[in-house]
Amino acid sequence: MGSLVAQYGAPHAVECIRARTLPPEFVARQAQQERPPNLTSALNAWYTRLAAANPAADIEAGQRSGARLIIPGSPEWPTQLDQLGRSRPLGLWVHGNADLRFSCLKSVAVVGARAATSYGSHIAAEFGVGLSESGWIVVSGGAFGVDGAAHKGALAADAPTVVVLACGVDVSYPSAHESLFAEIREKGVLISECPPGVHPTRARFLIRNRLIAALSRGTVVVEAAIRSGALNTATHALSLNRHLGAVPGPVTSAMSAGCHRLLRERKAVCITSPEDMIDLVGALGDDLAPQLRAPAVPRDRLNEPTRRVLDAVPTRGGAGPASIAVAAGLGLDTTLSALGGLAAAGYIERTSKGWRLRKQTTTYRKASDSTALEPPPTPEPDPTDLPPPPDEYDDPPKAAAYK
Amino acid sequence: MGSLVAQYGAPHAVECIRARTLPPEFVARQAQQERPPNLTSALNAWYTRLAAANPAADIEAGQRSGARLIIPGSPEWPTQLDQLGRSRPLGLWVHGNADLRFSCLKSVAVVGARAATSYGSHIAAEFGVGLSESGWIVVSGGAFGVDGAAHKGALAADAPTVVVLACGVDVSYPSAHESLFAEIREKGVLISECPPGVHPTRARFLIRNRLIAALSRGTVVVEAAIRSGALNTATHALSLNRHLGAVPGPVTSAMSAGCHRLLRERKAVCITSPEDMIDLVGALGDDLAPQLRAPAVPRDRLNEPTRRVLDAVPTRGGAGPASIAVAAGLGLDTTLSALGGLAAAGYIERTSKGWRLRKQTTTYRKASDSTALEPPPTPEPDPTDLPPPPDEYDDPPKAAAYK
Repeated sequence: MGSLVAQYGAPHAVECIRARTLPPEFVARQAQQERPPNLTSALNAWYTRLAAANPAADIEAGQRSGARLIIPGSPEWPTQLDQLGRSRPLGLWVHGNADLRFSCLKSVAVVGARAATSYGSHIAAEFGVGLSESGWIVVSGGAFGVDGAAHKGALAADAPTVVVLACGVDVSYPSAHESLFAEIREKGVLISECPPGVHPTRARFLIRNRLIAALSRGTVVVEAAIRSGALNTATHALSLNRHLGAVPGPVTSAMSAGCHRLLRERKAVCITSPEDMIDLVGALGDDLAPQLRAPAVPRDRLNEPTRRVLDAVPTRGGAGPASIAVAAGLGLDTTLSALGGLAAAGYIERTSKGWRLRKQTTTYRKASDSTALEPPPTPEPDPTDLPPPPDEYDDPPKAAAYK
Repeated sequence: MGSLVAQYGAPHAVECIRARTLPPEFVARQAQQERPPNLTSALNAWYTRLAAANPAADIEAGQRSGARLIIPGSPEWPTQLDQLGRSRPLGLWVHGNADLRFSCLKSVAVVGARAATSYGSHIAAEFGVGLSESGWIVVSGGAFGVDGAAHKGALAADAPTVVVLACGVDVSYPSAHESLFAEIREKGVLISECPPGVHPTRARFLIRNRLIAALSRGTVVVEAAIRSGALNTATHALSLNRHLGAVPGPVTSAMSAGCHRLLRERKAVCITSPEDMIDLVGALGDDLAPQLRAPAVPRDRLNEPTRRVLDAVPTRGGAGPASIAVAAGLGLDTTLSALGGLAAAGYIERTSKGWRLRKQTTTYRKASDSTALEPPPTPEPDPTDLPPPPDEYDDPPKAAAYK
C-alpha cells in the first residue's frame, strides 16, 4: 500500500482499489521483488476495508471530539517520519494543545513492559521527570506500566508529552488512563494512525511501535521481558539508526531480561539515569552526562608516600618508624617526614608503644558531600571496598615477598 | 625490582641491594625510560626491607603451617602469570590440597564489593555454584561479601576454589573466614605473595588483584561501587586481554554503579548467569550459553492469517465474519476458513450475535513449560506485553487509516 500511494498518490490508489484493478506496471514491478507480495489477496483485503470505510463520518467524529487530521506536508507533520520510507503513515489523527512537530524535535521514547515491576515504574517516572526538566519531550504508548509512569513523570515536571495510541485518539485504552489522557490533551498531544472510534488490536500495537521509534531521537527500554512489545520498538529504533538505550535491572527479574539481552548483544547502550540518555541522544559535547565520581575522602589529598605511610600505621598498639618504613616500602627519611605531617594533620598519634591511628571521635559518618568539603578530624577508611587497616601490628611486620 | 630480577636473577639482585649499589648499565637503561624511576629511593626502600627480612624463618613458619613455596619453573607454577611481564610474582606461597596450576587451567575470577548487598551475595553464590557445576574453578580474594559468597558457592557444589590472599596464607583475614579458609585448604588452595604471618595492607590488596585477573581466563564483577577494588581487578583483566564481564543490577543501587559503568563504556560484557560467563570465557562453539527464549504460547503455532483472525474476534458480544475480515485486514474467504479452524481447535465459539472468544475455563495459568507442550483449551493472551484483545467490538469496526 505504501508503494502504491508513493507511486500513484492516495486518490488514484483509492480508485484502483475501488475498481479492484492494480496498474499493470505496478504489478510487474512488485513481481520482480525478492519476495513478491500476494497482490490478489492484498487487493481483496484492501477492497473489504475500503467498503467498510466512511471517511466523511471519521472526519466528523474527529471534529466533534476535537481532534485534527494531519498528512505529510501539513505544517504540524513531523518530517522525521519520512525516514520510515514506504511504511510512513498516510496521515495522523492528533488531539491535544501541543504542536506535534515542535514537541518531537527534541524527544526521547521511554518504553517498556505493561506488567512493569515497581522498580520499572519508579525508573520510568524518574526518566519522565528528568528528561522533561532538561527540555526533552517524552514519547510513549500510553499503556499501563512503564509507558504510563513515564507520561506521568513528564506531567509532574509540568512538561508536554506525546502519546502514540494504537486506537482512535478519542478512545481511552486502557480505560483507567482516561483522566491521564485528558490531562495530556491539555498540555501535550495524543496521536494515532487510526480514525476515531477504532479499538486496538494486537497488530495495531505492533504497527504503532514504529511511530514511537521514528518520532524520537532515541529510545530507552526501561523494562522488557524476553518477549515484549518494547523490544519490537527497540528493533524499529535500530533499523531507523536511532539511538537505543536499555536500563539494567536485577538479573533475577524476568522483566529486565529483555534489557539485558539488548546490552549483552551490544545493541543498546547501558542507561542508568536521564542524564545518560541525554548524553546519548543530545548534541555532541553540549549534553554530556556528568562523569560519575566517588565522594572524595580526606586521604585522597595526601601525596603518594604519605598515603603509604598512613596505610602502614597500625590501628591498635603502636609501631616504630623503622617497622612502618618496612611495611610501607619506603626509606626511613621519607617515612619520618610523612609521620610528622600525618601527626600534625591529626591522622595519627604517638603512644608509648609508637605510632598508631588516632581513634575516631564519633561513630557517625558525615554525609559524603560534606565529607568532601571539610577535612574530618580523623581518617575515615573507605568502608565499602578498599580494605580497612589490618587489625594488628603488634608482631613485627615481615618483609613482603613482592617488590 | 621486576626488571632487576629479570635481567640479573634473584640472587644477584639480592647482592646488589645488600651492597646498596645497582649495576651501572641497569641504571643507565632505566634512565632512558619515558618516566625514569627514582632508583635511589627505591634502593633505599629495598635495602630497608631486605634488612628486616628473614627468609629462613619464613620458610620454617611456612613448613610449620603446612604451606609450600613455589617459584617460576615449579611444576605447580601457573604459567599464565608470565603474562604479567615484569610484575610477575617472584614466588607464591600455596596452602591447600589442590594443585594450583591444574586448578587455574579452567578458571573464572568472581570479584566484587565487600559491602555487597543481599542481591550481590546471592548472585555471587549462584555463580560459585553454577561455574563449579560446569567444571570451572572459582578464583577470588576471600574477602567479605561477593568474594566469600562465590567461594562458599563453589564449596557447596563440592568443587575446589582458589583464594588469592593479601596476607600470609596462615593468616585468616577477615578472621570470620577462618573456618571457610580451613575448608578451602581441604578441597582447594589458598595462595599469597606474602610470606607467612604478614598482615594485609591497602597496597597489598591492590597488588594482589593483578594475580586474581592473571590466574583466570576471565573476570566477572558481580557488584562494585564507583570506587572499588573490584574495578581495579577489572582494569588488570583488561590490560591482560582477559575477558571481562559485569553483572547488572538495579540502577538505584550504588553497589552496581561500577558494573554499569563498565557496561556503559563497553569494557565489559553484560553477564546475567554463569552460562553467560562460560559462553564468554569458554571454547568457541563448545560452551555457548543457551539462547533465551520466551515460553511458547499456543497461538505461536497458528499461521499468520489465522492469528490475525483470532486477534480480530471480540471477547464479549460477537461479530460476523465480514466485520472480522475488515478488522483482520483479510479477505472474506481466508477469514471464513480461519474461523472454522479456530472453532474446531476450541479457540472461539459461535453465539447468537456472531463469533467470540471462548471463555477461559480456569483462571489459573499453567506453568509455562507445560503450556508449551500441550495446547490449552482456550487462547491465553500473553499477559505481559502484547495487548489483550480489545474490550468491545459491538460497534462496527472502522477501517484503519494505515495500510
